[in-house]
Amino acid sequence: MRERLYLFDTTLRDGQQTQGVQFSMPEKLQIAQALDDLGVDYIEGGWPGANPTDSDFFAARPQTRATFTAFGMTKRAGRSAENDDVLAAVLDAGTPAVCLVGKSHDFHVTTALGITLDENVENIRASIAHVIAKGREAMLDAEHFFDGYKANPDYALRCLMAARDAGARWIVLCDTNGGTLPEEVGAITAAVIAAGIPGDRLGIHCHDDTGNAVANSLAAVRAGARQVQGTLNGLGERCGNANLTTLIPTLLLKEPFASRFETGITPAALAGLLKTSRMLDDILNRVPLRSAPYIGASAFSHKAGLHASAILKDPTTYEHVDPGLVGNARVIPMSNQAGQSNLRARLAAAGVEVAPGDPRLSAILDQIKTREDEGYAYDGAQASFELLARRALGLCPEFFEVKRYRVTVERRKNKYNDMVSLSEAVVVVKIGGEKVMSVSDSMDLDGSDRGPVNALAKALGKDLGPYQACIDDMKLVDFKVRITQGGTEAVTRVIIDSEDGQGRRWSTVGVSPNIVDASFEALLEAIQWKLIRDHVAPAA
Amino acid sequence: MRERLYLFDTTLRDGQQTQGVQFSMPEKLQIAQALDDLGVDYIEGGWPGANPTDSDFFAARPQTRATFTAFGMTKRAGRSAENDDVLAAVLDAGTPAVCLVGKSHDFHVTTALGITLDENVENIRASIAHVIAKGREAMLDAEHFFDGYKANPDYALRCLMAARDAGARWIVLCDTNGGTLPEEVGAITAAVIAAGIPGDRLGIHCHDDTGNAVANSLAAVRAGARQVQGTLNGLGERCGNANLTTLIPTLLLKEPFASRFETGITPAALAGLLKTSRMLDDILNRVPLRSAPYIGASAFSHKAGLHASAILKDPTTYEHVDPGLVGNARVIPMSNQAGQSNLRARLAAAGVEVAPGDPRLSAILDQIKTREDEGYAYDGAQASFELLARRALGLCPEFFEVKRYRVTVERRKNKYNDMVSLSEAVVVVKIGGEKVMSVSDSMDLDGSDRGPVNALAKALGKDLGPYQACIDDMKLVDFKVRITQGGTEAVTRVIIDSEDGQGRRWSTVGVSPNIVDASFEALLEAIQWKLIRDHVAPAA
Repeated sequence: MRERLYLFDTTLRDGQQTQGVQFSMPEKLQIAQALDDLGVDYIEGGWPGANPTDSDFFAARPQTRATFTAFGMTKRAGRSAENDDVLAAVLDAGTPAVCLVGKSHDFHVTTALGITLDENVENIRASIAHVIAKGREAMLDAEHFFDGYKANPDYALRCLMAARDAGARWIVLCDTNGGTLPEEVGAITAAVIAAGIPGDRLGIHCHDDTGNAVANSLAAVRAGARQVQGTLNGLGERCGNANLTTLIPTLLLKEPFASRFETGITPAALAGLLKTSRMLDDILNRVPLRSAPYIGASAFSHKAGLHASAILKDPTTYEHVDPGLVGNARVIPMSNQAGQSNLRARLAAAGVEVAPGDPRLSAILDQIKTREDEGYAYDGAQASFELLARRALGLCPEFFEVKRYRVTVERRKNKYNDMVSLSEAVVVVKIGGEKVMSVSDSMDLDGSDRGPVNALAKALGKDLGPYQACIDDMKLVDFKVRITQGGTEAVTRVIIDSEDGQGRRWSTVGVSPNIVDASFEALLEAIQWKLIRDHVAPAA
Repeated sequence: MRERLYLFDTTLRDGQQTQGVQFSMPEKLQIAQALDDLGVDYIEGGWPGANPTDSDFFAARPQTRATFTAFGMTKRAGRSAENDDVLAAVLDAGTPAVCLVGKSHDFHVTTALGITLDENVENIRASIAHVIAKGREAMLDAEHFFDGYKANPDYALRCLMAARDAGARWIVLCDTNGGTLPEEVGAITAAVIAAGIPGDRLGIHCHDDTGNAVANSLAAVRAGARQVQGTLNGLGERCGNANLTTLIPTLLLKEPFASRFETGITPAALAGLLKTSRMLDDILNRVPLRSAPYIGASAFSHKAGLHASAILKDPTTYEHVDPGLVGNARVIPMSNQAGQSNLRARLAAAGVEVAPGDPRLSAILDQIKTREDEGYAYDGAQASFELLARRALGLCPEFFEVKRYRVTVERRKNKYNDMVSLSEAVVVVKIGGEKVMSVSDSMDLDGSDRGPVNALAKALGKDLGPYQACIDDMKLVDFKVRITQGGTEAVTRVIIDSEDGQGRRWSTVGVSPNIVDASFEALLEAIQWKLIRDHVAPAA
């Protein structure tokens, strides 16, 4: 009988403390759904009251199997838990579980809060009791616990005992500053259990300031803690929180954890881990970390010649786990055997059937590799991938040819002495033997400049003759730009999401050192894909 | 008396196994020099013979205090060490130390090499003896040692003993597949020492496939190993090697390591760690990882309002080490979660003191809120935040005024019938009463078009008269674009990261429906910030 280990995700709360991260409401909903699909036990959604977006999110939160948790802090001194408006706002979110941060380091109680040690203990006790009286599951995040324990073990433990005795389901040991090293985390966690907090009521919350958030979490689990907190992709304040995309595969696939524990994550959900991780990067417009354990694009990529040849004999020679278990794939330069079945599946999804072993498959894989080296990214641009494959297979008609374009962006004072900007684009296209020249500015209906890519898109979409009816319902819905590595030079990668009247949405990619040119390439691909999908016949 | 701990850098050898990494000769020289300045004990330069660049590099290697080390493999079976041409090429590099990889996992000996277990032991013995006979310091990299020990401890130890008895200075335990977890690394290292390999002849070489490369290295040191191998920024095959930019500060600053060990790295060199790390990213044209422990731009960045207010009272409340010790700095970013104390701290860090309760503080916060509603994001753009605050406080001199600009992007066929693109920018600026008109195209040194923002940046930076000297060492290192919601309209947000000759890095933001205009705004702010930070006097 395996022991139950609980996973607590705080991507939406502590993860939002990452510099530059601010989730919108639809993004929070999308992430919560993905976490629930993954199978975590708790989803901490934010701090209702402290952040208006968080309150709105709790009001609109999805139905989940995972226990939705609101974050807050223990009541302040000098008032009752019932009369603390900050705590009331947290409870108002109506979540089944509430996690309150409370101090456990004497220095912080006196320095940061400026209250007595006894007052702080009472704040913890009364707050946890109040949450439970309201019929919720209560948890204490014991802030700075490890530093606090080292400074004053008796006091740090008193804080935990107050929460335990008040009935907290979980008491979470937080390494808030991230400075504690694994052996210490293990030893202190064991000491806490020995002092009377049962391991199955103990959680661990680590930060990566010494690069040990994962190791610290594992050390606490070995010592007896049974709830692990972390975030997707290790988001979080400063160096981030313990990375669940690393911890989850380790707990499920590696010994002694795999045999000893059971979590809410199924093998099928584990195989979706890479996709979940990429979804978050996509929302944040971040380039996925290639070297990330388990789910990084390089995690199972074998560059050394000696390694690659051994891998062909037996993959376990240089792989500690099977990449497929987390939805990843082996990458072996010079041998694209592994990629072919993947490729066929992707092509079939686009309605293109290719027989196994068709030599064009390896030609396509080579081309993808070359283009990815140049900076293209086909993971997030399925429509461009499809066009690349169709071209290699002779299944991509040439609808029109762009002879040239020119865009001007100008900013100057107008006659009212206001600074105004204006963009203008000229595009020359050859369709069925005929040259068509179109021009457009970048003004929207209100007379505001929408920029050079807008002007180009409008000029291009103005007169495509026989194709016009098909593309009239297209619109650009998202536009992402990254500076990335193309060969030895930095280039700009543009990914454009388009949508049509049927609600179909597709993504195309363009790469160039010139952002306008990269955008233009992605625009062209978007149109081409739409013409193919709508079975439009190319002009003679 | 502290024990000596040796640091072995393999950035130039194992680090070069990173996907997409291939150092040129001048780059290798630059990295070797930086490693020597940092104070590592060994610099592994590559595999002479296996890689022609590596042989050239060894021939041209700089004079270093660190011991230069050539990498190779133990002799093959069926010939003597003297007659193995691969080994001869390694020795030909003439380095004072030679590190040879040898198998220690029985399965690999029989499966990957296809030789007998005894032959492999003899290969190790004879190779190490040969290196020593040539007057060099010899080391064995015991490949797959941990997996080998788990499978067949007697055989794995026999391989080590062969190297020890042949006189190897160091026997390095390699977790080649990166799958071993910290407790196991510690326990097995202790077992090796108990079996008769002294800890001061034992090294540790870890990979990050479970996110534990740092923790594993620390576990081995605690168990008694006295040489630690790793790479700058954790470069390396798959998920990378143990990251020296994380390990070094931990070993020097954190207990129990700091009191117990002595390394070759001085406090002054440690303060240059951030710069060394950035230099490598610069060579690789990589965006530095913001969340990297110790040296990441976010490593000491405090976003949560509660944290920020406590940091003001005492930095140790939320910092496990002083950021200055590794050349980093505290950052208190702005976001809509921040309050007045956060704001005052951020201003103080920028050298602007404002009294608590000053009404201008809430005016600044209101302005930030308004701008964030328009699409600006100050949390990832500290320099723009600082400028906004300075403007509100009357502390932002007007250095120059941009009267107008115009950018053209053209794509057409050249006389060779190739499609080429070209951008051109004209900027008119008024400096101290005088109008200056500058023009630039977007060509880099190779004659490739780098796009409209590049042309604008070059035109703008071409002739800023009295400010030219200050801005000459500025360069654009990252450029991020998001479509975001500004009021009711979608707008483009551009965040530009700039860097100067001192390794200072700062971020500015621009927002506009027009991407070129948004970029231009961020560029202008970047220049303005640099002029202020360098105390440049505005032209009359």
